[in-house]
This record gives sequence, structure tokens and C-alpha cells, in this order.
Amino acid sequence: MTITGKQLIAGNWTDGRAGNFYGVNPATGEDLQPAFTAADEFQVAEAVHAASACAGEFANLAPAKRAEFLNTCADEIMALGDELLERVSAETGYPRARAEGERGRTCGQLRLFADWIVKGEYLDARIDTALPERQPLPRPDLRSFNQALGPVAVFGASNFPLAFSVAGGDTAAAFAAGCPVIVKGHNSHPGTSELVAQAVANAVKKCGLPGGVFSLILGSGTRVGAELVKSPGIKAVGFTGSLQGGMALFKLANERPEPIPVFAEMGSINPVVLLPEALKARAEAIAEGFVGSLTLGTGQFCVNPGLVIAVEDEGLDRFIAATSAALAKVPAGVMLNKNTLAGYQSGVARLRDQAGVEQVATGEPARGDGGFTCQAGLLTVTAKEFLSNHTLQEEVFGPMSLVVKCRDRSELLQAVSALQGQLTGTLQCTESELVNYGDLVDVLRQKVGRVVCNNFPTGVEVCHSMMHGGPFPAATDARFTSVGTMSIARFVRPICFQNYPEALLPDALKNSNPLNICRLVNGEKTCDAV
Amino acid sequence: MTITGKQLIAGNWTDGRAGNFYGVNPATGEDLQPAFTAADEFQVAEAVHAASACAGEFANLAPAKRAEFLNTCADEIMALGDELLERVSAETGYPRARAEGERGRTCGQLRLFADWIVKGEYLDARIDTALPERQPLPRPDLRSFNQALGPVAVFGASNFPLAFSVAGGDTAAAFAAGCPVIVKGHNSHPGTSELVAQAVANAVKKCGLPGGVFSLILGSGTRVGAELVKSPGIKAVGFTGSLQGGMALFKLANERPEPIPVFAEMGSINPVVLLPEALKARAEAIAEGFVGSLTLGTGQFCVNPGLVIAVEDEGLDRFIAATSAALAKVPAGVMLNKNTLAGYQSGVARLRDQAGVEQVATGEPARGDGGFTCQAGLLTVTAKEFLSNHTLQEEVFGPMSLVVKCRDRSELLQAVSALQGQLTGTLQCTESELVNYGDLVDVLRQKVGRVVCNNFPTGVEVCHSMMHGGPFPAATDARFTSVGTMSIARFVRPICFQNYPEALLPDALKNSNPLNICRLVNGEKTCDAV
Repeated sequence: MTITGKQLIAGNWTDGRAGNFYGVNPATGEDLQPAFTAADEFQVAEAVHAASACAGEFANLAPAKRAEFLNTCADEIMALGDELLERVSAETGYPRARAEGERGRTCGQLRLFADWIVKGEYLDARIDTALPERQPLPRPDLRSFNQALGPVAVFGASNFPLAFSVAGGDTAAAFAAGCPVIVKGHNSHPGTSELVAQAVANAVKKCGLPGGVFSLILGSGTRVGAELVKSPGIKAVGFTGSLQGGMALFKLANERPEPIPVFAEMGSINPVVLLPEALKARAEAIAEGFVGSLTLGTGQFCVNPGLVIAVEDEGLDRFIAATSAALAKVPAGVMLNKNTLAGYQSGVARLRDQAGVEQVATGEPARGDGGFTCQAGLLTVTAKEFLSNHTLQEEVFGPMSLVVKCRDRSELLQAVSALQGQLTGTLQCTESELVNYGDLVDVLRQKVGRVVCNNFPTGVEVCHSMMHGGPFPAATDARFTSVGTMSIARFVRPICFQNYPEALLPDALKNSNPLNICRLVNGEKTCDAV
Repeated sequence: MTITGKQLIAGNWTDGRAGNFYGVNPATGEDLQPAFTAADEFQVAEAVHAASACAGEFANLAPAKRAEFLNTCADEIMALGDELLERVSAETGYPRARAEGERGRTCGQLRLFADWIVKGEYLDARIDTALPERQPLPRPDLRSFNQALGPVAVFGASNFPLAFSVAGGDTAAAFAAGCPVIVKGHNSHPGTSELVAQAVANAVKKCGLPGGVFSLILGSGTRVGAELVKSPGIKAVGFTGSLQGGMALFKLANERPEPIPVFAEMGSINPVVLLPEALKARAEAIAEGFVGSLTLGTGQFCVNPGLVIAVEDEGLDRFIAATSAALAKVPAGVMLNKNTLAGYQSGVARLRDQAGVEQVATGEPARGDGGFTCQAGLLTVTAKEFLSNHTLQEEVFGPMSLVVKCRDRSELLQAVSALQGQLTGTLQCTESELVNYGDLVDVLRQKVGRVVCNNFPTGVEVCHSMMHGGPFPAATDARFTSVGTMSIARFVRPICFQNYPEALLPDALKNSNPLNICRLVNGEKTCDAV
């Protein structure tokens, strides 16, 4: 494959008409060839128009056909071979092993969704048969299932150039649901975006689908993304990124004449609560795991542990000492791009400026070689200061964490109660502490999407039970995950058929059950025909 | 029971401190005794505070205990006896049979939800067991289920004083999910609201639940409702009413520091598409059914058929003639309140003022007796005018419908394509027309929550497969219904537990399956223990 710098508009590769930009190698700070063109508003409109035109056809495709398409997308991504892995590393600074792991995750996700949709659970098919003799009124035949929402706009995330980008979780979920997708590729990895779009375009062709099913729009700045969200044909938005970016899209989407849902996963500080007995028993082991989680991928994960909460005691001192010793050996990591590095530096400076904040540990210093390298670190603050200063809850994206030192158990509970919504909340504890601190656990459950017990929050498994989301501001809608098979629910809506001729019902609702799926028939789950 | 005019704040009956207002008998226009007090902002805050304080306890209650509470609510509503039915009729102008039917629907709904939640389907419990040997990385134990969102604000609807009000669908769904509820009672039926709140308060006591689980706030105007939605403790809003009212709450909720979901069902014009063969075969029978649907409850249903679309031919002429003849005999109906009548009159006047609109039929004239009576009617317009004038799609709440006359099939498709989002879309057709007009059916499916075939849209069955909602502006979120067991999904969110000790997991996720529910275990649905 050759990277051309073009847009993919409904099956056609075409030059953007709104200027040029380049990918940048964050390890060196140098531009990467070739130049990419930026889409203009007419190209956005063309992609949305084509998506709308084929939305019904794609929605009505049998789940097995959509599964074949998802699997073909995975095959075609694998077929990109080393060129893809090399471009990922060049555009992100991620080592090859990470690029390879993320490719595996991306393809595994597409294949998991393929397997899942043919089971038909996500369709939530329900049949209530007619009761013509019922008094005082007969009941008509009523049947419902989940139908695709329509064209979805997906915004690629900088930190997962494959798994949360062009053919990442949002796109896979939307395809699985039967929605055409228009991706706004992230400026941080345009070459990776184009290569993956080539793979998806091949899959579209091989499966005989209309080109409107998939488009890739590129462009620097926020203009082209805003135009996409404002397009009347777009029916939902998937986004992973900053609070500022997510809220800008959320606002745009709600101000449309027809408001649409925005599923923005906006990250969080993922508090890690260290309980005293656990610290006493294994402060050093916890510190080792914590530093690994904090510095993984140069701290560039939505679930990076940016906050530690614990009662001041000898165990906490040991944790801080061990963490500091481990951090001192952490080399400066390469951040994804200039903006990410600048955001990290200003975020760290802002935290350090807050009353009572002390820096207690640092990693190896950033290199002065033109690459976007950064220094890891650990800060501390008292719970009293934490409780009175909301700035201390603002996410700093990167390998920096803040330890909140509580005087006693009551202050510990206060600090947890003061947290805003989070993707995850971690407890390091003994089993008896989990019982004894039941009040704290209950409060934590109200704040997070995932409770992690004696693990660390990094590592988001793609599976059926994953919840990657959480109360605001972790996400715009706590009722949905952006990872795992439950994420398909974002892009469907129920539709009900009343008194509809059996032969003309969608297959999911026919008496004969041609899809061979399990359905709720008159309130009972059954996999049989009616 | 005595109607006291007080607020119910977390179990305590207390006078509102923001002035007085009265219920009004719409059949006579006269005030009903006693006076009702209006809540002030401190009372709203007190109710929300109490709801937040007990949200965790109520959420953690076993489904069987919540089912007992739902059933007790139904028992207590029945125990109100004739006093409730009489007050409903006095406050709404509905005949006793309607009041009785709606009471049955309300209690049936509470009992259906009670039966449903013990089955545990709504919990969507999922277990992915640990894979410690997996390469390259082990998988931790991950388990998720749906947890209650937290306190819900419910706005009573004027037109269903029982079924969409204090203990109506939104409240029943929120209780079923495990969320405390604060109802803003509709001004149009404060006495009915208080009586039902007394029943719910009795159920709260009998089941030994904290008083914060349920409050009733009354007040005229929009102030107290706005304060409720802005309260930080409120986590979701249920509303049934006008587009204007729903969008005001939607805007308020999105502008909060923590945005929350608003499930506003805002009504629609529920197009009825008449296809030529069906008209040819049975224009008169269709007209009879149509007039019954149009004038049921004086046209005061969200699913009232306010629009008819058909190709001009002899069949359509026969339909209009038969409809006109039937309408002429329809007595003036009593509308719910002064505002509803004024809205109907101005809405009808606005429609009549639009270019090309002709009034072709009227019901019996409104009585001049001080009651809020109105005249039914039928209007016509050409598709050409309809396509160029968006005002013709604005809902007029009441027994008035507009027939859009299309020159040909192509114009028929255009008219359907121009529709905005609807709760329902009805097709009167032969089975072969359903095939031949496949393009029209596909477009209609994109526009509606429920497709009705050779029935009429009024009559919203409370069952598992009902979808009462639809694309904007029928509702703020097309992915959710406000009627039927699927409506519980509005008020829960998934939470995931990672590596959590088996003994301390919520019952829904324990290996032993103590709730005896069906769960998704490693991707397979099973009702067994793990």
C-alpha cells in the first residue's frame, strides 16, 4: 500500500481541498512524508450524503453478512503487515510490541463483535403475541427489536492509533449495529489512519457493500469535525479524548435542530485507594504495580492512575518511598505529539502551583533531543487541601500522580465522597477491609464505571462484561461503555411492529426464527420458533 | 383519605411555602377544594437530599424486595377506592370508565415490573472469568451488571393523571431500577397526585423503606420543576408532555455542571398512510376506525393521529366523506384544562391560516357552558403545500387531523420522507401493498418508534415489546421507551467489578447465582451457577 494523503469519501480516494498538513514523528519532532490534504465542508457533506443513502440497506443486512464484513476488516488490517506497524511506531513513538499488541486488540475486537452479532442477543428481539379475546380490550400482536440508528461520526483518539481510531471500538460497534461510519481521523496519526481506511475500503468492496458505508475525513484543527457533527444526516457521535474536546462536541450536538447523542469518553484520574492493612502487608508490592500502571505507555491511558488516596501512616510512607525509588529509574518517555507534551507540562506545573502540593519523586529527566519526551513524577497533598481545591481533580494526561494524605478514616471517606465521576476506582485492600470499609466502597461504586480490586486500572479487557465509561465527566453518558460487546447498544434503537404481517417482518421477529436467535416471547426467553 | 394540599417531602407531609393554587374541574371551569400549597426551593432541596441519602440502600435492595414494594404501591392505589376515581374525573373531565381503566393500567404496570425485575433480565448480569494462563497477558475476572442511576425527577403528564403521573410509568420504571423518585405533580390534577402519593407513602412505610425513596412536589408554573432538574442530586429526568416543556428541561439538564439524561416523550402527529388498494377495499371501515382513534379521550393522546397521507383518488374521497359524516356526530369533548383548550384553539387556528389548508369537516360545536369543551375536525392540504411548509408538522394536541393529498406515488414517498421523528407511523394497506411500497416502508421505519399495520396508533400496550418513543422531536432520546419493561433501561447503568472477592460481589454476580437469574457467562447465556 502507498500512503497518498487523500480523503476516502464513500469509496473514492480524493484530495482534500482545505490545505495540507503532516504527520510528525514524536521521537524526533520531524515531519513525516507524505503531506496530507484536509477535507472541506463539501467533502464532509458528500460523505454524509452517501452514508445516509445506504443506511437502510446496511441496517437491513443479515447479521451474518455484517459479521463477514467485520472479519474481512480484520483480515485486511492484518494484510497491511509491517508497513502498518512501522507507521504506527513512527507516528506515535510506541515501540513495535505495543503497535503489534494494539493491532491484535483491534482485530480481536472486530472478530469478537462478528461472533457476537450472529448470536442476536444485541437485537433484544421481543414478541408479544396477539390476545384477541382479552377483556376489556384485545391485545394486538407486538414485536420489537433493535434497529441501527443511522450514520455515526467517529473521532479517532490520539493514544490508540488502532484500537480507538479508524477501525477501533467505536467503528466496530457502529458497523456491528448496522450503522455507516464516517471517521474523523486524528491529526496525530494520519498515515496510520489512511492505511487502516484502505483496509476497510477493501473489505467494503470484497463484501459487495455500498461505498457510503465508510468514509475517512482528515483535517487539522477542529473545523472539519464540527462540520461533521452538525451534518443533519449524522445520528450519533463516538469520541475518545479530552474533556474539552468531548464537551465541545456534546454542546454542538445538543444545539442541532435535531439533537443527537454524543458518546464521549473523556478520561479521568482513576483514584487508587490504599487501605491500611493492605499497605502494612505489601506496600512495596503495591508500589511496584502502581509504578508499572502509572508509566505504561508514558502514562497516556484514559485509565492511568492519576490519584492515590490513603491514610497517613507508616505503610503509606513505605509506599511513597518505594514508588519514589522505582520512579527514579523510569526513563523519559516519548509523548504522542507536541500538544500532548505541552498539556502534560502545563498540567504538572498547574498542580505544583497549588497550595500544599509537594513533588516527592521524579523519573529520569526529559531528553533535550527534539523529541517530545517527558519526566514522570509523584506529588503529595493533604486531604484538607484536596477537599478545598477542585483544580486538584483536573486530569493531567501523562505519568504523574498525586497522593492525597488523609489524617484518618473519616477524612479518607470525605476524599472519596468528593470525587467526581471516574472511569475506574481501585481498591488495594484485604478482604476484611473490603467489608469494614463498606461505606467507602458504596460511595466509590456511585462514582465509577469499574471497581478494581487489588489490580491496577490500566488494561481494559475487550469482553462482554467490560464497562469503559462512567459518571460525568468521565463520559457524557454513564449508561454506555465504549469497550466490549455492550458498546453496540450505543448505536441501536428499538422499533416496534404492531399487527404486522408475519411474512414481511424483519427476520429477527418472524415466528419461524430464521436467524436462530434467543428471543423474549410473551415474557419468557426462548430460542425456539413461535 | 383526606386531600390536604400538602407536599410529601421524604415521608413527611408539609405545607408548601410558595403560595397556593387550586385544581379546576374542566367540565365546569370551577375551582376544586381544597387549596394546594406550592413548594419552595428549600423543600425541593430537602427532598433531593433525602433521596440521595438513601439511594445506595434502595439500589442495593434485593429485586424481590423492590418487587414487593411495587406490588404494595398497586395494592394501596386500589385501596383508595372510589375517592380516587371521583377525583380523577373531577380534575380531568374523563368519564369514570376511563379513570377505572387507567387505574387498572397503572396498577398492572406496577405489577408487571414487579414480576419482571425478579427475573433479573434487566440486570444484564455478565461474567467473564479469569484466564490466568492467557498469553501474552492474563485476563482478570470481570463481572458487570446494571446498577441504579440515582435519584430520578419525574414530571407528571396532564393527560394520564394515573398512568403517566405520580405512580405512572416513569416512577414505576425508576423504582424497578432501584432509583428514589421525586415527582413534580402536574397542576392539572393536584388532588389525584396527592391521593396517589399517599398510597405510595403507605407502601414505603409498609415495606420498611426510607422516606427519601419518594417525594411529591407541587407548585404552579415552571419554577419548582426547574429547581428540581437543576438539583445536583438528581441523576435523570422522566417527562411526558409538550415539545416546549420537554426541550426546556433538556436544555436545563445539559447546562448543569454535570449534565444528566432527560427522557422526554414530547408527542408527535402520528402519520397514518392510506394506500390505494386498502382505501378501495374498505375506505369506510378505515374512516370509522380513524374517527374513533382521533376522538378517543378528546384527542388528548401522544399517539393521536394528527396527520393522514394518501394519494388523491376515489378511495380517498370516500374516506374523507365517511370521516366527515362520522365527525359531524362527535359531541364536543371536555379538554383537560384551560391551557390545553387554548393550545388546541390556537393550534387549529394556526393550521387553518396556512396556505392551501381547507376545513372539510367539524364535530359538534363547543358548548358555551363554562367548561373547557372543544370541537373536533378534519382539514386537508395538498402535498405540495405540505412539503413547503414546516408549520403543518407542528402538533395540535386534540381531535383535529390534517389530510395531505398527494398527486401520485412519488409525492406520497416525498411526503413521508419529509416527516420529522414520530412516536408511531400507521399503514393502512393490503399485504401486497406492503411489499410494493417497500421503499416507503423503509423510510417510515427510519422516522418512527412503532410501525402500526392496519390498526390505529392509539392504545399503547404495556408489555415487553412496546416502544413508546421515537426519533426527535417525538422524544429526546430515540434509544429508550417510556412504556413497557424496556423502559427500566433508562434508569440504570452498567458497573464492572474486576478481580473482586466472590463473597463480596453483588448477589447478581456471585458464582452461586443466589438470585437464580440468567446471565451471560463467558459469552454464553446460562441460568446456572458458575
